[in-house]
Amino acid sequence: MSGGFGLHDLPIRDDLRGQSPYGAPQLDVAVALNTNENPYPPSDRLAAALARGVAGAASGLNRYPDRDATRLRAGLAHYLGHGLEARSVWAANGSNEILQQILQVFGGPGRKAMGFEPSYSMHPIITRVTNTGWVSIERTREFGIDVEAARIAIAVQSPDIVFLTSPNNPTGTALPLEVIEQVARVAPGMVVVDEAYAEFRREGTPSALSLLPSFPRLIVTRTMSKAFAMAGARLGYLAAHPAVIDALQLVRLPYHLSAVSQVVAGTALDFTDELLGHVKRLREERDALVAWLRDYGFAVADSDANFVLFGTFPDRHAVWQGLLDQGVLIRETGPPGWLRVTIGTPEEMSAFRHALLHVTGRADRHGR
Amino acid sequence: MSGGFGLHDLPIRDDLRGQSPYGAPQLDVAVALNTNENPYPPSDRLAAALARGVAGAASGLNRYPDRDATRLRAGLAHYLGHGLEARSVWAANGSNEILQQILQVFGGPGRKAMGFEPSYSMHPIITRVTNTGWVSIERTREFGIDVEAARIAIAVQSPDIVFLTSPNNPTGTALPLEVIEQVARVAPGMVVVDEAYAEFRREGTPSALSLLPSFPRLIVTRTMSKAFAMAGARLGYLAAHPAVIDALQLVRLPYHLSAVSQVVAGTALDFTDELLGHVKRLREERDALVAWLRDYGFAVADSDANFVLFGTFPDRHAVWQGLLDQGVLIRETGPPGWLRVTIGTPEEMSAFRHALLHVTGRADRHGR
Repeated sequence: MSGGFGLHDLPIRDDLRGQSPYGAPQLDVAVALNTNENPYPPSDRLAAALARGVAGAASGLNRYPDRDATRLRAGLAHYLGHGLEARSVWAANGSNEILQQILQVFGGPGRKAMGFEPSYSMHPIITRVTNTGWVSIERTREFGIDVEAARIAIAVQSPDIVFLTSPNNPTGTALPLEVIEQVARVAPGMVVVDEAYAEFRREGTPSALSLLPSFPRLIVTRTMSKAFAMAGARLGYLAAHPAVIDALQLVRLPYHLSAVSQVVAGTALDFTDELLGHVKRLREERDALVAWLRDYGFAVADSDANFVLFGTFPDRHAVWQGLLDQGVLIRETGPPGWLRVTIGTPEEMSAFRHALLHVTGRADRHGR
Repeated sequence: MSGGFGLHDLPIRDDLRGQSPYGAPQLDVAVALNTNENPYPPSDRLAAALARGVAGAASGLNRYPDRDATRLRAGLAHYLGHGLEARSVWAANGSNEILQQILQVFGGPGRKAMGFEPSYSMHPIITRVTNTGWVSIERTREFGIDVEAARIAIAVQSPDIVFLTSPNNPTGTALPLEVIEQVARVAPGMVVVDEAYAEFRREGTPSALSLLPSFPRLIVTRTMSKAFAMAGARLGYLAAHPAVIDALQLVRLPYHLSAVSQVVAGTALDFTDELLGHVKRLREERDALVAWLRDYGFAVADSDANFVLFGTFPDRHAVWQGLLDQGVLIRETGPPGWLRVTIGTPEEMSAFRHALLHVTGRADRHGR
């Protein structure tokens, strides 16, 4: 290889110059609470079923997979309920690929997408990679969306795609159904509700799935990474009007989803009850953490997700580093002064609480 | 869902209107020789190893995969040889995703890619989806590339990306190393040599891998779909200067390649000898078919791939349909009058030969 030749010598797109690849540091620590992973690995029973499933699929691996992933989509539709069928569901390699396909068909040069930030950082990143413009609207002080401000922004900007994230990452905030409905009513293009964390929402918090019959330009995206504890399997999906799935066929890479991915995801769906049992434990652990943090005087955003945004710290980086020094890795993200911690096992949360009190010196102040 | 609402009611990109999704018909036939699949399924031994590999990976599936697929890339580099290391290799979900990432970072609005057609149809399709312009140059009558014509076209058009497919799909034509070298010498941007069928080339036909040390803007793409008989596993990869891999990080979706895909591909690499044994049989079968077709008076393009382009027929669709009626599905593709048949098992090729003679009535003419 030519010595000295580097990235700056390559004819990359001008707007990519100086950018850094997205991704949290993959550090080797005792307690990793930084990427909203589910701490509960597949059970032995599920692992064995996955091996059996792959062994069964192996004999056909020399052939291309079912391009339309029909069986998996039927399984996902059944799981989602709301009377959905396979033709209203689409699947891809992680919800990032789902989002990219949406932007490729509904975005592009001369078009723009709008998001309410702080929110999932991949929305603007994938928007930019697909040469779509990005319009950022600020969330309220409580990390919600002000409907009047949203209506005005949509009227002024006329975005081709509006992203609503609920529950929102990194704040944990779920949107009332009325907000989504109002936005869908005035948006001139597509409305994408990113519900990656939907299964973690508290009792009584609705899903936008119930709005699909009323809004054919509404898309609800989901993932098996979080509630199904399958971050390593990369399976994202969406529910929408069947015409939306037709539209995505124009940009999806043929055979994008491997036969192995299809069988792995289908097998995980067979274990829905077991996996959602873990979700219940994580929700309880989250609610306990929120109460504990408030008890110790921290500011905490209400959370409907498997993580909690808390603060505020004059020097959040110092707190983040202090926790890391104690073997606890969380995420330095969100508005200035805030930090995000993923809900792990009871043992992991105990380690986090001890480390946090140690680093902030708050134990003494409360005399505990 | 709203009745009557359809694709035409959705705000898709204007340039996608009226397009059809890419993909060969997935028909259920006795003899499928239409998508250049490898007819030899994984052995029982490989299937068992795949199941064991996935069972081993299962316990970590709740975590995100290694974003950089370091171990797999090292295995692919070792397989490719030529002194390549992991940092010169990149992997994705099929070589289509590899091509899309290349176009996302080096193409885009205001940029253009050039190809020599007929060639792999996904090159212009992915080019268009990434909003890159497409410049099509005709191959010679023998389906090769005229170096002088290529030099002029490159000088006039100044393409940001040049695609060279070798062996070429759907013609089977491999390019002499001098052609690739001459193009790489004058191309102002990136040169992508798509070597999806490289392992099937005849003795003495070179790979562009040997040119990598001389040309830091050269990319060689490969796939495990064909020689490794893993079309269902979706694993494409490329070799290039490490700076190119750095560039791709700016557009790749984080964690694009599942932990399962990484372990499946790595396991297949462990069976390289077994799998390349099947490749040897397919090459022999191909050479025999080329000789047989010529013996029967058909025109046949020299093939270095696992398929053969043959003809010519005043009504190729009638021949294609006639074969299908006999249970043999081939591909109606390539220049007018030509058809493409994938090399299958000896039994499948026997079925193809019988059906072809029946459909074209050529058996009688030769008195056999």
